[in-house]
This record gives sequence, structure tokens and C-alpha cells, in this order.
Amino acid sequence: MDKARIEKLHELEEKLDYRFTDINLLNLAFFHSSYGNENKAYKNISNERLEFLGDSVLDLVVSDFLYNSKSSLKEGAMTKIRSQMVCEKSFSNMAKYLELGKYLMMGHGEFISGGSEKPSVLADTFEAVFGAIYLDSGYESAFKIVENKFKSLFIAEIETKSSFIDYKTMLQENNQKKSRDKLKYKIVKEEGPDHDKKFYVDVYEGNLVIGSGFGSSKKHAEQDAARNALIKLRVIDE
Amino acid sequence: MDKARIEKLHELEEKLDYRFTDINLLNLAFFHSSYGNENKAYKNISNERLEFLGDSVLDLVVSDFLYNSKSSLKEGAMTKIRSQMVCEKSFSNMAKYLELGKYLMMGHGEFISGGSEKPSVLADTFEAVFGAIYLDSGYESAFKIVENKFKSLFIAEIETKSSFIDYKTMLQENNQKKSRDKLKYKIVKEEGPDHDKKFYVDVYEGNLVIGSGFGSSKKHAEQDAARNALIKLRVIDE
Repeated sequence: MDKARIEKLHELEEKLDYRFTDINLLNLAFFHSSYGNENKAYKNISNERLEFLGDSVLDLVVSDFLYNSKSSLKEGAMTKIRSQMVCEKSFSNMAKYLELGKYLMMGHGEFISGGSEKPSVLADTFEAVFGAIYLDSGYESAFKIVENKFKSLFIAEIETKSSFIDYKTMLQENNQKKSRDKLKYKIVKEEGPDHDKKFYVDVYEGNLVIGSGFGSSKKHAEQDAARNALIKLRVIDE
Repeated sequence: MDKARIEKLHELEEKLDYRFTDINLLNLAFFHSSYGNENKAYKNISNERLEFLGDSVLDLVVSDFLYNSKSSLKEGAMTKIRSQMVCEKSFSNMAKYLELGKYLMMGHGEFISGGSEKPSVLADTFEAVFGAIYLDSGYESAFKIVENKFKSLFIAEIETKSSFIDYKTMLQENNQKKSRDKLKYKIVKEEGPDHDKKFYVDVYEGNLVIGSGFGSSKKHAEQDAARNALIKLRVIDE
């Protein structure tokens, strides 16, 4: 590797707050397979194996965030949310933040067709960089870098996605499992002017109110009531 | 947790060569969801969230073994082999070796129907135990335990599975990518008696021999020739 390349990579190390023991690993993370196809000396050199490893590293980091998130999600919800988070869109945005595109080594054709800005290429490169960090000094280093640089993004995503969990369905499933009486939702009050209405809903199991909630629409109020019922039933934590 | 339970779990710690800082984590790994359904005091206590975490931990450990295996497999082959290895069958066998079944807490119905010996239950519990180790002291501990206890099993599996890689298909794909001349396989020699025959095969790209191999059948000889061609083309390592 020439001096200019090493200095360029040092720039990225500063962004990551991490200094590689073996800078060649970081360099390898930027070899798109198209580069080796055009340059004989680099034939079969590519970041694809690092990407494979980095994918598992990031998967575990995100699983850890999900496990320890304050939403105390159940296994099914965590699996669903993880698959939405460990994806091209999230990773390519993080790659853009680190400006990974400018370190890429690509074939000429791929480069002029805008390959270094393709979300799929950027996401793969992001994974490869974390594969490289894992090899360079282990999982804890990789975890700490994601934690320092991206945890708040991941946590925000977890919170948004957990808020979209369908509590009514969850309550319905819980109810069926225990074969209890049928669930019913009833609006008990509406207040406020049309543009700023507030709905109050109770959810009944048979004749028993098992949860109450409110919201800006009937739908939101029902979700809130179901969520409160699930908390009372200790199916989810507050 | 009562003293008898703690002592029972210490037995397992000895098998793992690992002492938990928080033995409650190990205990939690054995709570099958059916137990909480029957025992109100343990309602919603189950090992499912630990299993979610352990799944990612073991996935990374196996990815590491694959990345560092001497077969230097490509990304696609690693992904394929990993999905075969990180499975119910492998994990339930390892769980049996550790006798995890005898620590399980299950509902009565599940237990008398043989739940503690079900491969799926054992595999889930195996994952949960590694989720517990990860939480107790981090990834490195979990990695070391798998390495000490099971690496040789995993490596044997990797070697068997890599030997089943279809080199003819791989060569074909490589050939199409580079749009070279068509591939042809030709038997150049057969020797030995019927029950101990040896076939020699050359693989041609157009008129050029790009690899030679031999084997106890035409099929094996062709695979060997394709493999040698891939090595010469530097697509795979020796």
C-alpha cells in the first residue's frame, strides 16, 4: 500500500476513533470485486469474505441493543425488528456518514456507473469494515465503535419500530392462548374540537375491563388500551 | 433459587469450564415457556429472549470458524455452510453432550410428552445457555467455550461440507462470468480392475486444458479436474 493510501485510511480511523493494528485489513474492506476483475495483480481480492464476517458481527451488536432496550421486547418482536434494522438502508446511511464511498477500489465500469454511491455497495462495505475490526482486535472493539458512533441511531430505530408493534393483535393472541372470554373495545368518551379530538377506549374481556387507553383517533386509543392491558397482564413491561 | 438447584447448575459449569458471575442467568436459560404457563410465580419467565441473543452469538462464532478455516471458502459457500451448521441438529447434539435436558424447567404436560429430549427444545436451550454466557461476561468467553468444547466438531463439519462443494458448478459460473469459451470434460485414461478403477479427466476451455484430475468414478474425476482448474485460476486456494 502506498503512503497516500495509508494516510487516506488514517482519516477514516480518526472518524472511527480506532487505530488498526493491521491497516491492510481496513484496506481490504474497500476492495469491491469489480476491481480485481480489471486488475490482474488483485485478481480474486475482494471484501466479500470480510462482509460475511461483518454481517454476523453487526447482527450480534444489534441483538444486544434489542435485548437490552428498555422496551423488553419478546423474542418474536426482536427477530422482526432486527431483520428490519440489519438492512441495506440502515447500513448504507451509516456508510455515508463515514464517507466510506471515497475509499472504495472499484473497476472502472462500476465506478463510472456510480457504483461507489450505490446503497447495496455501501452497506456491504460497512459490513466489511466491521469484519475487519473484528479480525483486527475482536468483538469488543467492534461493539464499542458501533456503540459510540451509532447506538443512538439504532435505539431511536428500536423505539420507533417497537411503537409500531400491534398491541391489539398481541392481546388477541394472548387471549386465545389462555382461551379466555372474547375481547371487545368500547369508546367511553370523546372530547375536544374536531381538529383536536381525544378518544377514550376500554377493552373488555367478557364483562371485565382489562385495560383503558386514549389517543387522537379511535385506532390509537384502542392500541393504547391493548398495550395497557398487556402491561396489567404482565405480558409486556411498562 | 434453592441450594440443590445451584449445586446442580454448578455441575454444568464444570462441564463448561466456566463459572458464572450471575448464576441466575444460567438458571433462566432452562426455563421453557411451558413452565411459566403452569406456575403463576414464573408467568412470562422463559428462556426465549436468551435464545434470541445466543443465536446471534453462535452465528458469529461459526462465521469466525468458517472465515478462518483452511478451505478459504468464498462468501457464498460460507453462507450456505453456515446455514447448515447453525441448525437444530448440530445444536441439539451439543446440548445432549452437555446433558442440558436434565436442567430444564418445563410444564408437566410438556415434560411427560418427552419435551426435555426434543431436538428443537434442546437446540433452543443450547442457544439460551450461550446467550446467558454472553450477558454474564461477554463474547470472548462464549467464543472460548465453544472453541474449547466444540471447535473440532465444527471444523470437521466445515471440512466435510466444503468437500461437497460442487466445483463443476463453481467453474461453470466463473467461466460464464468471464464469458470464456465453453467447458468440456474428457476422460483421458482409465486404469485398474473393475472394482478398483481410476479415471483421469481433463477439463478444457475451448481447446485449452485448464485442469486435470482423477478419481474412483468419472464424476469424482471431473470434480477433481474442476477443483484443480479453480486453483490454477486462483478462484480458490489449494
